Amino acid sequence: MAHRIAIIAGDGIGTEVMPEGTRALEAAAKRFDIELEFTTFEFGSCDYYLEHGKMLPDDWFEQLKGFDALFYGAVGWPDKVPDHISLWGSLLQFRRRFDQYINLRPCKLMPGIKSPLAGREPGDIDFYVVRENTEGEYSSVGGKMYEGTEREIVIQETVMSRTGVDRVLKYAFELAQTRPRKKLTSATKSNGISITMPYWDERVIEMAKSYPEIAVDKFHIDILTANFVLHPDWFDVVVGSNLFGDILSDLGPACTGTIGIAPSANINPEGNFPSLFEPVHGSAPDIAGKGIANPIGQIWSGAMMLEHLGYKEAGDAIVTAIEEVLSEGNSQVLTRDVGGQGTTESLGKAIADAV
Amino acid sequence: MAHRIAIIAGDGIGTEVMPEGTRALEAAAKRFDIELEFTTFEFGSCDYYLEHGKMLPDDWFEQLKGFDALFYGAVGWPDKVPDHISLWGSLLQFRRRFDQYINLRPCKLMPGIKSPLAGREPGDIDFYVVRENTEGEYSSVGGKMYEGTEREIVIQETVMSRTGVDRVLKYAFELAQTRPRKKLTSATKSNGISITMPYWDERVIEMAKSYPEIAVDKFHIDILTANFVLHPDWFDVVVGSNLFGDILSDLGPACTGTIGIAPSANINPEGNFPSLFEPVHGSAPDIAGKGIANPIGQIWSGAMMLEHLGYKEAGDAIVTAIEEVLSEGNSQVLTRDVGGQGTTESLGKAIADAV
Ligand SMILES: CC(C)[C@H](C(=O)O)[C@@H](O)C(=O)O
Ligand SMILES: CC(C)[C@H](C(=O)O)[C@@H](O)C(=O)O
Repeated sequence: MAHRIAIIAGDGIGTEVMPEGTRALEAAAKRFDIELEFTTFEFGSCDYYLEHGKMLPDDWFEQLKGFDALFYGAVGWPDKVPDHISLWGSLLQFRRRFDQYINLRPCKLMPGIKSPLAGREPGDIDFYVVRENTEGEYSSVGGKMYEGTEREIVIQETVMSRTGVDRVLKYAFELAQTRPRKKLTSATKSNGISITMPYWDERVIEMAKSYPEIAVDKFHIDILTANFVLHPDWFDVVVGSNLFGDILSDLGPACTGTIGIAPSANINPEGNFPSLFEPVHGSAPDIAGKGIANPIGQIWSGAMMLEHLGYKEAGDAIVTAIEEVLSEGNSQVLTRDVGGQGTTESLGKAIADAV
Repeated sequence: MAHRIAIIAGDGIGTEVMPEGTRALEAAAKRFDIELEFTTFEFGSCDYYLEHGKMLPDDWFEQLKGFDALFYGAVGWPDKVPDHISLWGSLLQFRRRFDQYINLRPCKLMPGIKSPLAGREPGDIDFYVVRENTEGEYSSVGGKMYEGTEREIVIQETVMSRTGVDRVLKYAFELAQTRPRKKLTSATKSNGISITMPYWDERVIEMAKSYPEIAVDKFHIDILTANFVLHPDWFDVVVGSNLFGDILSDLGPACTGTIGIAPSANINPEGNFPSLFEPVHGSAPDIAGKGIANPIGQIWSGAMMLEHLGYKEAGDAIVTAIEEVLSEGNSQVLTRDVGGQGTTESLGKAIADAV
């Protein structure tokens, strides 16, 4: 039976890297005899907003909920639509309504990619950031008072539920259990943020009781970001709230030099709604339209999607193809950001061929 | 007339680095003919808490408010007192009650200090993080509901006031104006945190109108942390909310390799209450009592204090002395963290001598 994939390319370079994402998926599908059926949607982009006054049609939930997965490019174009409108009107809706409560991002030194950190080699850094993806600091609860006066105040609430915290912790502990080092690091700030963060810590201690074989530690977010730079080899699985996970899952790929090519998965582990796979990079208005964007983030996200659909071997084949093409270092093929003179298409084709 | 300085050494290595901090201050005072009068207080430490059941005596505000500055070591010892109690009961009280609404931290590559970033030299990185220090994400407003049940939720409010936001922005713009590059970067997250952060952005735009000569940009906190690692040379003055500033002012010194030696100033710019000067590092229970802690953070904080009291030349002399001793690289003098076999005292004495 075919797996139905909804394609939403979004804005800017999203529309340029998406064809390369599907190209690699098609190559893997052919090789491993997987049936994928792609359906493309125009909504979820700022251009759609400019035409319709909203990011998504009213029936988007009905249209999308039956798909097996969503494959997203990148959304946002601040000169057209303010970010908090474009993002809250699309990506953040998907994460919440489809209850994709896990945001998973690998941080891995890849061959041929220069890390900004001194003296680190492929193999030295290889960890996952597991981010809570539906609540916490990203609430829409709050408001403004004394508006327009000197006494103006704004308030925004961070909301954590036991259900919300426990399920992301459980996922992270389970992931740690599949890894050789069996180590979990919790991101906190209980010394400064005095209500929600001590609660987070309590739930970590509680959950750890069910996983006695996992070595658990915690760091406050300030020193944790420092340790990503100073000791990236310490980490195996790092779990954080929505905001802390957001920060760490940009900083981690920055430390491995992969910020432009890292993938991410927004996962509904129970599978009652589709999960969503997207590159970490944004729509990059500054280089959009030039055909020079690196498509690896989109392609690698496709690999995570295949793994999620049950095809681990096919997903691994795509990651191996990426590593091969990066190792070869053919400057005619590679895009500028990784030292070549090639295009989005030349790099995408090379990876699809390698698959 | 003598300047009255209150000394609170606090916990762990705080008590070990403090004597070196005052030693350097005394040397500078002698050389520049400044009169400093030190008064030592035992409160503000976890040992005080264990004895008295509170971090500070009830009349701490009266006892301290008349001083010209507070010189703090480090507070916190999680095995004795949970961090959120020790910190909220001391340091965070000082910041708020003395309205030290600016937290200022230099991020500077120093000679002889190894940066974890590849290929960066002294001179390449030299910026300030200006952090809002009294409101924002560090509120004590919120609570718990359905406690102890599956439906448990915790809520914590981020509170920003126009007064609070504007005054830290003003300070940051003024600081940028004194610097050759005249550049200001604002840390935001208005694409995800939809109420307080768009407000922060609005106020930055508003304030920028009064400083047309300053080049302003902004980054979301996730990519900003990435850019600290990838492009630390981009930054001159970086301003952020309480939480974002906290993160950036640990990450910045980590990128320059100075996390163990960076200073910080908690400033009340109007001077109606004393300002507080403390190293960035914590009490480091793991190395406490061994006499091997690096005292530079404490000494450098003393330099910031002298500058704040109006003695810029004397402050600069201490910083120059630090740079000299680091450049000399005498391993008998330097502590382990910077490649030597010396002690807290040997390094402190060398710097005082150099002054
Ligand atoms: C100890 C902690 C409460 C404090 C803070 O977060 O403000 C510290 O990290 C700092 O930066 O001074
Ligand atoms: C675009 C933004 C709202 C989003 C987030 O903060 O979640 C992005 O940074 C991400 O990590 O997917």
